[in-house]
Amino acid sequence: MGAEEHRKKAPKKFKFGVVTVSDTASRGEKEDASGKFIIEALSGNELVHYSVVPDEKLAIIGAILDAFEKGADVVITTGGTGITSRDVTIESLSPLFDKEIPGFGELFRKLSFDEVGSAAVLTRATAGVIRSGGRALVVFCLPGSLNAVKTGIGIIKKEAYHLLKHARE
Amino acid sequence: MGAEEHRKKAPKKFKFGVVTVSDTASRGEKEDASGKFIIEALSGNELVHYSVVPDEKLAIIGAILDAFEKGADVVITTGGTGITSRDVTIESLSPLFDKEIPGFGELFRKLSFDEVGSAAVLTRATAGVIRSGGRALVVFCLPGSLNAVKTGIGIIKKEAYHLLKHARE
Amino acid sequence: MGAEEHRKKAPKKFKFGVVTVSDTASRGEKEDASGKFIIEALSGNELVHYSVVPDEKLAIIGAILDAFEKGADVVITTGGTGITSRDVTIESLSPLFDKEIPGFGELFRKLSFDEVGSAAVLTRATAGVIRSGGRALVVFCLPGSLNAVKTGIGIIKKEAYHLLKHARE
Amino acid sequence: MGAEEHRKKAPKKFKFGVVTVSDTASRGEKEDASGKFIIEALSGNELVHYSVVPDEKLAIIGAILDAFEKGADVVITTGGTGITSRDVTIESLSPLFDKEIPGFGELFRKLSFDEVGSAAVLTRATAGVIRSGGRALVVFCLPGSLNAVKTGIGIIKKEAYHLLKHARE
Amino acid sequence: MGAEEHRKKAPKKFKFGVVTVSDTASRGEKEDASGKFIIEALSGNELVHYSVVPDEKLAIIGAILDAFEKGADVVITTGGTGITSRDVTIESLSPLFDKEIPGFGELFRKLSFDEVGSAAVLTRATAGVIRSGGRALVVFCLPGSLNAVKTGIGIIKKEAYHLLKHARE
Amino acid sequence: MGAEEHRKKAPKKFKFGVVTVSDTASRGEKEDASGKFIIEALSGNELVHYSVVPDEKLAIIGAILDAFEKGADVVITTGGTGITSRDVTIESLSPLFDKEIPGFGELFRKLSFDEVGSAAVLTRATAGVIRSGGRALVVFCLPGSLNAVKTGIGIIKKEAYHLLKHARE
Repeated sequence: MGAEEHRKKAPKKFKFGVVTVSDTASRGEKEDASGKFIIEALSGNELVHYSVVPDEKLAIIGAILDAFEKGADVVITTGGTGITSRDVTIESLSPLFDKEIPGFGELFRKLSFDEVGSAAVLTRATAGVIRSGGRALVVFCLPGSLNAVKTGIGIIKKEAYHLLKHARE
Repeated sequence: MGAEEHRKKAPKKFKFGVVTVSDTASRGEKEDASGKFIIEALSGNELVHYSVVPDEKLAIIGAILDAFEKGADVVITTGGTGITSRDVTIESLSPLFDKEIPGFGELFRKLSFDEVGSAAVLTRATAGVIRSGGRALVVFCLPGSLNAVKTGIGIIKKEAYHLLKHARE
Repeated sequence: MGAEEHRKKAPKKFKFGVVTVSDTASRGEKEDASGKFIIEALSGNELVHYSVVPDEKLAIIGAILDAFEKGADVVITTGGTGITSRDVTIESLSPLFDKEIPGFGELFRKLSFDEVGSAAVLTRATAGVIRSGGRALVVFCLPGSLNAVKTGIGIIKKEAYHLLKHARE
Repeated sequence: MGAEEHRKKAPKKFKFGVVTVSDTASRGEKEDASGKFIIEALSGNELVHYSVVPDEKLAIIGAILDAFEKGADVVITTGGTGITSRDVTIESLSPLFDKEIPGFGELFRKLSFDEVGSAAVLTRATAGVIRSGGRALVVFCLPGSLNAVKTGIGIIKKEAYHLLKHARE
Repeated sequence: MGAEEHRKKAPKKFKFGVVTVSDTASRGEKEDASGKFIIEALSGNELVHYSVVPDEKLAIIGAILDAFEKGADVVITTGGTGITSRDVTIESLSPLFDKEIPGFGELFRKLSFDEVGSAAVLTRATAGVIRSGGRALVVFCLPGSLNAVKTGIGIIKKEAYHLLKHARE
Repeated sequence: MGAEEHRKKAPKKFKFGVVTVSDTASRGEKEDASGKFIIEALSGNELVHYSVVPDEKLAIIGAILDAFEKGADVVITTGGTGITSRDVTIESLSPLFDKEIPGFGELFRKLSFDEVGSAAVLTRATAGVIRSGGRALVVFCLPGSLNAVKTGIGIIKKEAYHLLKHARE
């Protein structure tokens, strides 16, 4: 069964959560344009969680868990994937992944290289699957900038259904 | 400054959470004697969270986070430290530790060896410190049996204040 | 000495093993088109092991070891690189690698992106070198689908000799 | 249910493998007193595999797999747990463990400390559980010396049944 | 703030070290063309360390530390990123990274694929950030060949300032 | 060959380094009683390095490397093994170990439990072997307090020769 075939059998909708990871946005000092863009872009699906949290390990994990408890199949985080000392999204979430999906970060950076050039090396964007209690959650970790989020959402809109179908097996 | 000196400067009380990890107790099929014993034994301190969760990764992590959000300084889990396929407490929590405390598991097993003999090899009980948002949380993972919990609480009553003082530095 | 030069000094032939990882094929419920394709594609070399094993850790490792004992320089696995709960080829083999070769998975996915689009994010295909007893074994882990195997074999036919030469040093 | 209770419900016999890891013994340059002692000591159970292999990663793993394929519930290795550059038993096997059992190494060293003093620090003896294909295998890694093996077998004779019962759940 | 904006705020110069990792060059048996190329290519910045060391873990780490002590913001290593048994640059340095930068190796190999074809799979080139004592050091690990170094330096000249700005935050 | 026999064949002297890890001592704000005690206690051997460094990763690693370059066979560190956020000795050095020696930390804590009771759980003291350039270095990481150092040196005086003999093989 080819990828095309698989995609036909994939779920047509999913429940999703959006977690914006940003010290400044969490204090209300800037608007969360990236989070709002994600919610809008995936509006054909069901939003079950949205939060803006500071760059703190337990706050980030807590937001993921809240989305999971509300039934999310997919969570998209934005922010905290860079290399400053405050960037801890990857460090916080990748230890929870049962399987990491290296191709997501690679494809994201490949597309970013084409768009913004070598500056794309900065992001450690990734994705992974968490399994617990008989359910599967697919997590995508995107950078904070709106342009990066647009690139990431392009991939997610095409592949999240397919990934979710496999993750559930 | 020696250990005795340190202990004098340690906090006299802490806020704590108790998380019983047990499929059967979470379904109400057995009473949670171990959790109740812990709550009673530490009653000079302030209980801020108590829950009984199944042996599932995100349920266990979620309980820890809930305790943390309610201000817990210390969380004690009971159950899920053995070697059956359902035992996932250690696998769920140790990736969150900023520092693991090997001496706790060693001392726990040393005392258990003296009490129940070599059967004590079965437990993977451990402890660790999680740091997030400028706070520190000390987590102790004890086995599910009441006898084991009694042994573990003996150590915790003596050392948790001291550990907490250091973890906060 | 450039890559071209190196390639000239590389061995002209190798002994290889093929391991198809598939629950259904191992029960005889479907033909192993991918494994057969690999054998045919590398027929200028010497096949020393071929087996079809279920998606089980020790069965997968056992097949690799059998190939090694029969003198294989190279083993190609097909199947089990995805993200379902049964996909364990990467989990089983990467802990055995003395050196992982990240560029193989990246190049494989880059070519797949060009061929099938972003669906290529799904595969965790990789390669690595295992050293033991003074010998080196290069292992390539490909997905199960025939199309993916064709893409992977294209890289392997060009680079396996070169990789093997270096792995032996 | 206490440890005593559990032990009553544990299997009364197991199938076991013995793997002696020793360059010299594998070349026939010295007798394998330790392996023979283990076989004799566990003679109330069923021996399904015995081999003497050199200190090489794939030879060690291969012996474990052979025992597993022959139905072993328990494998005991002797040798290769020290700190010379040739000692690779722990490095070879611990990546295969689904769960490591820290208490076994600790208890083994505690008893050794009492017997031979601080020289016992040298051994990295450990134990773990490997799961594959719906079965569980308990692996004990003992040092090569006959005295150390005697100490280790003392623990194993008492606890292997109990450990096995849990590992199978 | 976009990547372009960030780049404007980045430092205009950095202090850098160059570490050539090569058994033969360290014995004076071949000239260090790659190291010299790097020094020349980055001559608008300040060279604070240059050394040629053998493929030995502590020699490699030692050179990095010496550069750091002399005030380096950036260190570029050349050599030891392949898959021979002597290649240990990645093994020596990646455990020191507080954050690894996967996009650097990916972009380096992407450009190499375009230049030399699939032979580029051989290199495990990477980059990372080390934090210590309130300072940040960005380390780039390039292959030993002059052509590879030219490709790598192309990226570094464009992005090192930007990476450094983020690493310092 | 038993432990007693081995000990006879062990080297009678070693070259050693002492590294005191302490923010306050490195600023000259307190005397380094622990470091001086170690030097005195091992005075039958040859001291090749002594330094007092702050609790910073690269400073700690740098001191180890300096001792190694001066020919040290053994390095003893004191300080930074606890659980405060500044304690990074274990985090800095254990990634460099080719083999960790779990029995050292266990025996150290066992003796400490007997001396100071359960407060001994606080220390993460450990030991390990680093190999590089055909040489072996045995590293012991002790706590900072003078009492702890006395306990640790008791073990080291008995076992360092023996450990060194094995590490060199």
